[in-house]
Amino acid sequence: MTFQQKLDDQIKRNKSLLCVGLDSDIEKLPVKFRNSRNPQTDFNKFIVDSTHDLVCAYKINSAFYESHGPNGLMELKDTCDYIRQKYPSIPMILDFKRGDIGNTNDGYVQFAFDYLHVDAVTVHPYMGRESLDPFLRQKNKGIFILCRTSNPGAGEFQDLLVDGKPLYQVVAEKIVKDWNKFNNCYLVVGATYPEELAKVREMVGDMVLLVPGIGSQGGNVEDTIKAGLNSQKSGVVITSSRSIIFGKNPREEAQKLRDEINTFR
Amino acid sequence: MTFQQKLDDQIKRNKSLLCVGLDSDIEKLPVKFRNSRNPQTDFNKFIVDSTHDLVCAYKINSAFYESHGPNGLMELKDTCDYIRQKYPSIPMILDFKRGDIGNTNDGYVQFAFDYLHVDAVTVHPYMGRESLDPFLRQKNKGIFILCRTSNPGAGEFQDLLVDGKPLYQVVAEKIVKDWNKFNNCYLVVGATYPEELAKVREMVGDMVLLVPGIGSQGGNVEDTIKAGLNSQKSGVVITSSRSIIFGKNPREEAQKLRDEINTFR
Repeated sequence: MTFQQKLDDQIKRNKSLLCVGLDSDIEKLPVKFRNSRNPQTDFNKFIVDSTHDLVCAYKINSAFYESHGPNGLMELKDTCDYIRQKYPSIPMILDFKRGDIGNTNDGYVQFAFDYLHVDAVTVHPYMGRESLDPFLRQKNKGIFILCRTSNPGAGEFQDLLVDGKPLYQVVAEKIVKDWNKFNNCYLVVGATYPEELAKVREMVGDMVLLVPGIGSQGGNVEDTIKAGLNSQKSGVVITSSRSIIFGKNPREEAQKLRDEINTFR
Repeated sequence: MTFQQKLDDQIKRNKSLLCVGLDSDIEKLPVKFRNSRNPQTDFNKFIVDSTHDLVCAYKINSAFYESHGPNGLMELKDTCDYIRQKYPSIPMILDFKRGDIGNTNDGYVQFAFDYLHVDAVTVHPYMGRESLDPFLRQKNKGIFILCRTSNPGAGEFQDLLVDGKPLYQVVAEKIVKDWNKFNNCYLVVGATYPEELAKVREMVGDMVLLVPGIGSQGGNVEDTIKAGLNSQKSGVVITSSRSIIFGKNPREEAQKLRDEINTFR
């Protein structure tokens, strides 16, 4: 099954475009988890068990695990195994924003798909298509390429004009035209920039967009959904991390956001 | 001590601009190492013991370790500890090419500098200066930003013209002018593109450039050195990985390349 099919099925099953981000920074965990032997895994199990019927995907950012060395990587692995075994229909996106020369990217491909068994990853476009071939060759996986990121300073390079067109649009165009031979390319576009999101949607047809930046980063739900939906009233994966997982009641936060998103579809 | 001082001292001590890359892909190791309990660490100890008096730095690419999960990370950590304890004067560059939003980069900073204790890292520029602040705040560390990479398809985005100037030059210019408040910014420019290297040298004064691509990737030593040297006949860190560490006699390969580089200084 392709990533696209798995995602589409899950969007329908849970009537949800919400992707919960497991940015499980140990310092921010509730005390009872922080003191456990496997704080991140235990916390993630709690979050996943509380939200599995409300999400279209989970996004796991590797930085929060790598920062703790081999133990952190063990927690990342255990989290992925738990989701895959208990909720095999839910796609997992590894948000690790990699990008190296071709023979080196093989190592990252191995890490993501053979070791963690995730369904999709995020990558940097700067080194070009040729360097990312080890990722793009994975026909059944999803490759999300950074296009217009959600951070305040995203525009420094991404808005530079190339023949009158901002760089992020050139990236989007090249990916749609030249990179997507196996229909496994997707883009990352921040919710903090709804105008840019609308512009990308105009350029890429029905392609799925991964949209971080709702919640703690300040993105607005209505603007984001209106700008991002495709012709099937779908095609956006709305990621929220901190404001759900560190909320008073993560399940309620997730349900509220899923339902709010659906009111604008 | 700053990374710059440590590097300058080591360049003088070993009369060397050669940086050996520990791309210790397990599948490519000699059989006697491949069958050991800690193949990468044992191999790296052998390489480091054979070359420590010939190099200005070691570069360690994290992909070759991460691909093996927690065990690989343990090998990466043990390698870094070994170099730091036995050869404390040799700078270590962690080539992990990261780049995420600010609060997430904190995790990568922690991994590189608090856990592995490396002296420098490589990062992606695409998300802009603001996102990289957690790295750029590390005054005594070296932050190498990808500028013109060594891979064949590097030009796809890096050569796009922005007001008549290729993107990689815009990146170089911004870093020199706006990013380098703490004099801890450096650039990565591939040896496979000597003309672009010469152009970057022209733009950045005496700034140190990390130059991969000699050897297996096809970069030529004379062209690279002539294009890259700064006004002090220094300022380039020439990285070679596979053609040294997997050569018949790594010490001889390293010595030959160090000496060849020096003939053009």
